[in-house]
Amino acid sequence: MTERALDHVGIAVHSLDESLPAFESITGHKGYGRERVDSQGVEVVFLGTGEGRLELLAPTREDSAVAKYLARRGPGMHHLCYRVPDLAAELDRYRAEGKQLIDEAPRPGAAGHLVAFIHPRSTNGVLTELLQAGH
Amino acid sequence: MTERALDHVGIAVHSLDESLPAFESITGHKGYGRERVDSQGVEVVFLGTGEGRLELLAPTREDSAVAKYLARRGPGMHHLCYRVPDLAAELDRYRAEGKQLIDEAPRPGAAGHLVAFIHPRSTNGVLTELLQAGH
Repeated sequence: MTERALDHVGIAVHSLDESLPAFESITGHKGYGRERVDSQGVEVVFLGTGEGRLELLAPTREDSAVAKYLARRGPGMHHLCYRVPDLAAELDRYRAEGKQLIDEAPRPGAAGHLVAFIHPRSTNGVLTELLQAGH
Repeated sequence: MTERALDHVGIAVHSLDESLPAFESITGHKGYGRERVDSQGVEVVFLGTGEGRLELLAPTREDSAVAKYLARRGPGMHHLCYRVPDLAAELDRYRAEGKQLIDEAPRPGAAGHLVAFIHPRSTNGVLTELLQAGH
């Protein structure tokens, strides 16, 4: 069994500007790495370092997955992201386990990494992102 | 600004026995520290070490907060827990910021720690637990 490191906890918010101060107060960290990820229709910002860091996600268009999530469930915890050495091999493993994938192949994520999501139906309601470091 | 360490990500599940294998597969860690916390009406088990560890919570009675959460939202991410050196002082700080507390004073949590929860209404929908290590 290969131990995986948590890369971040993703949190869906309506507005980065409005939400960031509350998370800076809770975590004691300043936000950094703010970036638009147009392929996912989100803008993100990170807080903290190491396994405990947070990624706040705000939608940049109404048809993005995060906008739909906010409309359905409101702001709150959105996903967990784990680092893996070989994302394509991991996706093969999950497919073989019969798990439902959202992304059948790795695709570009924030900060130049490759990412893919597993459907929460296959992971006890926890939307799970896998990340292969891009550099 | 004092930086806080994430202690764990809490995940609500219907059954520890049924859910643990899926999380062991995702994280690559075996579950440990299984314990009933009767004051909260839950049974918990942990996976992993350090900031990225997970706490699975299953209800032990129908009127527990976690049972109500599961009935309303289904299984999934439930709370974030941060370590603080002085929990009573932290609660005073959040009260002074006008944040809504679930616990007005520290109370016993799992593994002999003191804990208190901040209402998700005050933290962008993220139920937040603060933990003062008990030993």
